[in-house]
Amino acid sequence: MCAKKCGKKSSCCGSKGAARSGSKKMVYFFGNGKADGNEKMKNLLGGKGANLAEMSGMGIRVPAGFTITTEVCTDYYKNKGKYSPELKKQLDAAMKKMESAMGKKFGDVNDPLLVSVRSGARMSMPGMMETVLNVGLTSKTIEGLIAKSGSARFAYDAYRRLMNMYSDVVMEKAAGIEPEEGKGIRQQLEKLLNKKKYEVGAKLDTDLNEGDLKDLCLQYKAKIREVLGVEFPDDPMEQLWGGVGAVFASWNGKRAVSYREIENIPHEWGTAVNVQAMVFGNMGNESATGVAFTRNPGNGDNNFYGEYLVNAQGEDVVAGIRTPAPINKNSQSEQNMHETILSDWDPKLYKELDDIRKKLEKHYKNMQDLEFTIENRKLYMLQTRNGKRNGPAAVKMAVDMAKEKLITREEAVMRVKPEQLDELLHPIIDPKTEKQAKVFCKGLPAGPGGASGRIVFDSRAAVEWKSRGEKVILVREETNPEDVEGMRASVAILTARGGMTSHAALVARGWGMCCIVGAGELHIDYDRKTAHSNGVDLREGEWITLNGTKGVVYHGSLPMIDATKENTYLHEFLKICDSVKKIKIRTNADTPGDARKAREFGAEGIGLFRMEHMFYGVGSDEPLFLLRKMILSESESERKTALNELYSYLKKDIKGTMEAMDGYPVTIRLLDPPLHEFVPHQKEALEKLALALNINAEKLEKRTEALKEMNPMMGHRGVRLGVTYPEITEMSIKAILESAAELSKEGKKVSAEVMVPVVCTEKELIDQKVIFDKVLAETLKKYNLKKLSVMYGTMIEIPRAALIADRLAAVSEFFSFGTNDLTQMGFGFSRDDIGGFLPAYLDKEILPEDPFQTIDVDGIGQLIKYGIERGRKTKPGLKVGICGEHGGEPKSVAFCYKAGMDYVSCSPFRVPIARLAAAQAAISK
Amino acid sequence: MCAKKCGKKSSCCGSKGAARSGSKKMVYFFGNGKADGNEKMKNLLGGKGANLAEMSGMGIRVPAGFTITTEVCTDYYKNKGKYSPELKKQLDAAMKKMESAMGKKFGDVNDPLLVSVRSGARMSMPGMMETVLNVGLTSKTIEGLIAKSGSARFAYDAYRRLMNMYSDVVMEKAAGIEPEEGKGIRQQLEKLLNKKKYEVGAKLDTDLNEGDLKDLCLQYKAKIREVLGVEFPDDPMEQLWGGVGAVFASWNGKRAVSYREIENIPHEWGTAVNVQAMVFGNMGNESATGVAFTRNPGNGDNNFYGEYLVNAQGEDVVAGIRTPAPINKNSQSEQNMHETILSDWDPKLYKELDDIRKKLEKHYKNMQDLEFTIENRKLYMLQTRNGKRNGPAAVKMAVDMAKEKLITREEAVMRVKPEQLDELLHPIIDPKTEKQAKVFCKGLPAGPGGASGRIVFDSRAAVEWKSRGEKVILVREETNPEDVEGMRASVAILTARGGMTSHAALVARGWGMCCIVGAGELHIDYDRKTAHSNGVDLREGEWITLNGTKGVVYHGSLPMIDATKENTYLHEFLKICDSVKKIKIRTNADTPGDARKAREFGAEGIGLFRMEHMFYGVGSDEPLFLLRKMILSESESERKTALNELYSYLKKDIKGTMEAMDGYPVTIRLLDPPLHEFVPHQKEALEKLALALNINAEKLEKRTEALKEMNPMMGHRGVRLGVTYPEITEMSIKAILESAAELSKEGKKVSAEVMVPVVCTEKELIDQKVIFDKVLAETLKKYNLKKLSVMYGTMIEIPRAALIADRLAAVSEFFSFGTNDLTQMGFGFSRDDIGGFLPAYLDKEILPEDPFQTIDVDGIGQLIKYGIERGRKTKPGLKVGICGEHGGEPKSVAFCYKAGMDYVSCSPFRVPIARLAAAQAAISK
Repeated sequence: MCAKKCGKKSSCCGSKGAARSGSKKMVYFFGNGKADGNEKMKNLLGGKGANLAEMSGMGIRVPAGFTITTEVCTDYYKNKGKYSPELKKQLDAAMKKMESAMGKKFGDVNDPLLVSVRSGARMSMPGMMETVLNVGLTSKTIEGLIAKSGSARFAYDAYRRLMNMYSDVVMEKAAGIEPEEGKGIRQQLEKLLNKKKYEVGAKLDTDLNEGDLKDLCLQYKAKIREVLGVEFPDDPMEQLWGGVGAVFASWNGKRAVSYREIENIPHEWGTAVNVQAMVFGNMGNESATGVAFTRNPGNGDNNFYGEYLVNAQGEDVVAGIRTPAPINKNSQSEQNMHETILSDWDPKLYKELDDIRKKLEKHYKNMQDLEFTIENRKLYMLQTRNGKRNGPAAVKMAVDMAKEKLITREEAVMRVKPEQLDELLHPIIDPKTEKQAKVFCKGLPAGPGGASGRIVFDSRAAVEWKSRGEKVILVREETNPEDVEGMRASVAILTARGGMTSHAALVARGWGMCCIVGAGELHIDYDRKTAHSNGVDLREGEWITLNGTKGVVYHGSLPMIDATKENTYLHEFLKICDSVKKIKIRTNADTPGDARKAREFGAEGIGLFRMEHMFYGVGSDEPLFLLRKMILSESESERKTALNELYSYLKKDIKGTMEAMDGYPVTIRLLDPPLHEFVPHQKEALEKLALALNINAEKLEKRTEALKEMNPMMGHRGVRLGVTYPEITEMSIKAILESAAELSKEGKKVSAEVMVPVVCTEKELIDQKVIFDKVLAETLKKYNLKKLSVMYGTMIEIPRAALIADRLAAVSEFFSFGTNDLTQMGFGFSRDDIGGFLPAYLDKEILPEDPFQTIDVDGIGQLIKYGIERGRKTKPGLKVGICGEHGGEPKSVAFCYKAGMDYVSCSPFRVPIARLAAAQAAISK
Repeated sequence: MCAKKCGKKSSCCGSKGAARSGSKKMVYFFGNGKADGNEKMKNLLGGKGANLAEMSGMGIRVPAGFTITTEVCTDYYKNKGKYSPELKKQLDAAMKKMESAMGKKFGDVNDPLLVSVRSGARMSMPGMMETVLNVGLTSKTIEGLIAKSGSARFAYDAYRRLMNMYSDVVMEKAAGIEPEEGKGIRQQLEKLLNKKKYEVGAKLDTDLNEGDLKDLCLQYKAKIREVLGVEFPDDPMEQLWGGVGAVFASWNGKRAVSYREIENIPHEWGTAVNVQAMVFGNMGNESATGVAFTRNPGNGDNNFYGEYLVNAQGEDVVAGIRTPAPINKNSQSEQNMHETILSDWDPKLYKELDDIRKKLEKHYKNMQDLEFTIENRKLYMLQTRNGKRNGPAAVKMAVDMAKEKLITREEAVMRVKPEQLDELLHPIIDPKTEKQAKVFCKGLPAGPGGASGRIVFDSRAAVEWKSRGEKVILVREETNPEDVEGMRASVAILTARGGMTSHAALVARGWGMCCIVGAGELHIDYDRKTAHSNGVDLREGEWITLNGTKGVVYHGSLPMIDATKENTYLHEFLKICDSVKKIKIRTNADTPGDARKAREFGAEGIGLFRMEHMFYGVGSDEPLFLLRKMILSESESERKTALNELYSYLKKDIKGTMEAMDGYPVTIRLLDPPLHEFVPHQKEALEKLALALNINAEKLEKRTEALKEMNPMMGHRGVRLGVTYPEITEMSIKAILESAAELSKEGKKVSAEVMVPVVCTEKELIDQKVIFDKVLAETLKKYNLKKLSVMYGTMIEIPRAALIADRLAAVSEFFSFGTNDLTQMGFGFSRDDIGGFLPAYLDKEILPEDPFQTIDVDGIGQLIKYGIERGRKTKPGLKVGICGEHGGEPKSVAFCYKAGMDYVSCSPFRVPIARLAAAQAAISK
């Protein structure tokens, strides 16, 4: 095989230079339907060079040229800017081949070949390195160009452009001049251009005529001589070597170096240099240039889609000065429908282009983004690459291409980025507008999607404004059950405090509502009805827009893109994912409604039903009232009375949810949060409760005060409540088991899993298991059943639990990893308080990512692996899953799959993303 | 060897019964200076039986007897209460030997042998099983006893006692009667006794005469017949078998079973039964009984020490009705100095006893607690066992015995319990009084020892009362720097809130002051000046007593024992410990004074100097003021100004402490607590600060509010402060390095260790290391030094840090485990909030111990082991230690040693305990 791994036989790279023993091949030719290199040689030829070689090798016409390898770049730095004589030989040979392919000669005064000199690294570094066009134009060859093109204006314009670029990129740097910002040679030349335009009354560059441009060329030469102290080179080869050197030098330019540092691109890779024959779409009305996609990137339709401009250069198509014409009827829009389509302008040429389109898509097995130029009715392809597409298009193309057998099901799965599905699940802010929007503040992304609305500061105002037909966003310090009505009336929620498990975040996630919490910079003045951040005050009624996926709040009302209705292909795509993935996707849902929604999204069970959810005031106020009564009871008997009243509410939701899940497993977590979270925080509510409970308000306040904790996250919560108040556990388990029993009796399928939270020792599980066993025996007897499909298991969310998982497994039928808390305790990061330092940690790259967004594989991952290994050592085949935010995050899903979990669980709106992530993980493994 | 592992040759157990093929030896004889068994056979003979055999085997006269093995007990339960015929044979044979040894016969109407039947398990279960004395007394044999003893009164009293015990222990149970509490046969018989005493006007039992007792015996017999429906057995052998059965049955009595469950004694062990000839110290004025210690258990002096009573039974010596006499001059006290000493009463017999004393101590190599009885001038030893002793005595005996070569240095080390040293380090509450004292409330033991004082509720009152010569205890919700003056004026501190790392706990520990924090039940009303707990209100000025070692507050002023002045042997003992121990003991100290104190206690370095200590207001108020200024600065430049002012204070303490440690390593931890801990909490202080800082008070309050966190323990603290405010790190490190440099320049030895707290990723360490390296270079230059003995290391206190210790070791020169935080995060237990559930967890035995007191080896221990293993994998020989409370707790010290740590560090007053614990750990390994 070829030593360069070009994938061809060893003779492939057998140019004369390379054939000689001991000499390395440094220059790779392409053109004339042939090529020395190919697509697989990106390391050596860079992305651009490899791609041009590939196209040429496929027999597609590209302007001929050659690539100087990245190894030469490395040597260039090793040898302090000097080239080996061998390079010159190989370059000369390649120039000969290029001349022959293009039928022109470099430096020919009658019909000169002009070339472009461009960088091309292994990975794209857009705009970071240098380019010089029109190399080869001199005071002599310009005459030939004028003659051949028939346009002196065109030729002088090309010459002017060459001087502009070359003096900046090559000459100024070679002279070692580092001008002040905005005072470089380029800017000085542009000043002359502007002066000329002013003198002749031209608005656009194109308004300048032949004479103006010719004069400008003379002025440019003089200015270059004046500023840089040397003449503009009049020798084509000198220009060429200057360009090559400038590209190599630009690899270590400041911008390029810092770009590589950010993107983690190794400095030792080096760049290749592509020297390619110039073709001109602006050589007159028989010439044109265009861009096209092999399918529609906006909606995924399998139609050729593109635009072109007659007598124009590549940049003109995107510059927006002239309206480009559609290449065919499918590409027509309101704006361009009166322009001549390419298939009418030149049907034969269009046919040629359409054939190339088919050939390339078949070859690359992906939608291609093409650039082409027509020079005197001759078609040249300048570039092909996998085309960018939006979410809906990505999904449709993946499904279509799989159907067409162009790609496999696995390839189809890999074609859609999980985050692209967000576009199909929520309205999003138009990305183009978002880039320019002004940021008001930032917070934690608690509910995905985008939303615009007018600021209101309390629940009452939200309801009132909504009733007037206004779109409102509720902005609060933090929310609590008393705010639920206002939250429901809003299109989004923004809080200044609280973390991803705060009331606002939990409620919003359940509703699939856009939400940002914990915006630390935000200061709210309820009295003055203002929200202050970054030195700006916003008043009630002012518009803001939230990006709940990123956690950014913008000023004003930004336009939205809503693709949630058009996702007809989503279902089909996710079916493909399901056929590939190896783990189950469950959801976190706490009501029959959520459960049904999650089933629609494809959930295969509930991984987390939070007992406490009904106390967030989302359904009725009564359960919260009863819970408060229970919490603030003075005696066990009072507490039991309140619990009995609570029982029916609990059972109703549990039973309904189980029924909605139709036999899919439903994991119900026993009461988790510290009791203090549920007591009234507002004086008004406190007094109301005191009245209802017939207790002195002052006494009640003291009792609620007594529940306060220094670090509630590590306080009296979870199973610790169950151990100290066994009657709460008993009532909860009774509600679960009797729900299951009743459904069983009704002939319905049911599978319940009772889950104990915040466990740190097996004795806690044993303590609660006694209650479980007792209630199970009572339930079987009461309903005259022999058995009930119900399991008893534990969360692994305390670091110690992961470490002693072997013991926990002896008392558990399943494990569910609570990675939120595991991350909190494992890092010692309070999620509610990381605002003070996490931004700095991410800025300084002390942490690569927010560990609450993506599982920290290095640290927390170890605990998860220990937990699974040790658990299964005691109980092989132990059922293991994850509940919590990470369950819907693609990288984390991949980790969970690799770690051997049976399922992941996430909020309903994340289920499709998790299904895709799970499928991609299965393929990647 | 003998199959019973008696340690003798196989012929030892060769009684007739055992010699017969297939028959198991069930009965082991002792007496006449011989024995079948010995001390090593505790599993088979129980503790008492093995010990009696040992003494007898040594040639010491004990009343002859035999032991029925624990195996018989097991068989008894297996066979549902039936004995094998073989047992009867072996018992009969042993009875014969006993009769021969004592020269009396069981059931002899002329000179009857009486026996006691007692239980004897492997481990002592005091009072849990049954005993019957005087077995063998019948209506016939009593005449022989009267004749031989010459006292009918003595004989009838013995008969009455037999009936009393036997009817209860044997007969009532055999009849299957379960009487109501207080209405058993025993109580009914005692009613008859009281009636008789009333009738004859007797105050004490001993006031009853022969006739009274004879009559009572008749009444007893009739009552037994009436209540139990059977006659009191008049056959000696029937009595004996009844007694044996009752002892076996009592093994499974309710009390015994629950005792075993609490003490974790296996139920299958069973008890042995000891049948032993009765000897009587109350047989007249030629008889006596006594107890003695081979050395003085109160101070450890090597003097024979004991008491005896003529014509008395064992229980009379301790009952306190008659004043026992001293056995010799050394045992004389003010109370008994007029009584006849034993060496005068019977010099020959005393000589015999003193010889036995020497023999036993030499044999057991330990101070013995002896019981003896003299029957008609004949000495019998009833028991010997290792004697209990107080702390000072334990230390002196260990040192003396090692000097005498009675024991090795290692044995000496093992002779003192670490907690006994507390008695030599702090005044303690007199244990006898404490048992009966009334508990006011309980909290966390934050400063050891005991103290009594009058309650005051604020700092000003404390100072004022102190100036009047009063002893006061400051009682507060929690303390802060503003309370320091009052704390200093108090003898102890009690707080209702806060944990072991609260301000009160930290300050008290540094001062070695008695302190209890977080007494959750305590409610303080500052206005009314009352402290409420357990339904009782205490007012200002009322007395309370604190046991700071246990965390218990008592009503009133309890008497104290203060042995801190007399510990002349402590130094010598700890020297022995040092020669044995393998790890270093460091201390946690933050001031030159503490450092000097710790050196006196034997500290070999400082494991934790807390940068923030000086902000607790202990020294001057100025550093705290400057810190507050720094914290509340609006800009970096303001912050830097405040830091510069702080610098000199910091350096003074650091330099002084390093100097006091004279070249021993000093580990200085960079700022650890969240900044909010230091801002003013009281309105007054806030206004004062605002004035001084020239800021609006309202604005200042807002700024302090903004620093509040939901879970500060997992918030913006430790290295997170250092990363976000690098100027704090820089100033701190500068203070450390310049201190070291100045001492170096002054020709003093110095060894500094800079320690970074709350680290969870190696990048944090790298970030701070840049500052460390910069300051080090600057310092070397400034002081013109080539090098400085200074290390850079990290705490391992976050679970993730332990897991990625291999990476941390690459950037650390040492590790120090912060097991307080590691326990908090590993368990998810906020130490400040465990009051809500930890008591229940300990009660229900969900946790065996408070993991903040003793390292949780099973869980947190894993993290520690991972941390050490992984750290040393990267850097073999990495220096590893522990700082924090566990470093002074004996079990934890043992764990740290086994885990491979180089040192432990604890508060100064715990250093002696740690030295002992480390020595014991080295021996136990």
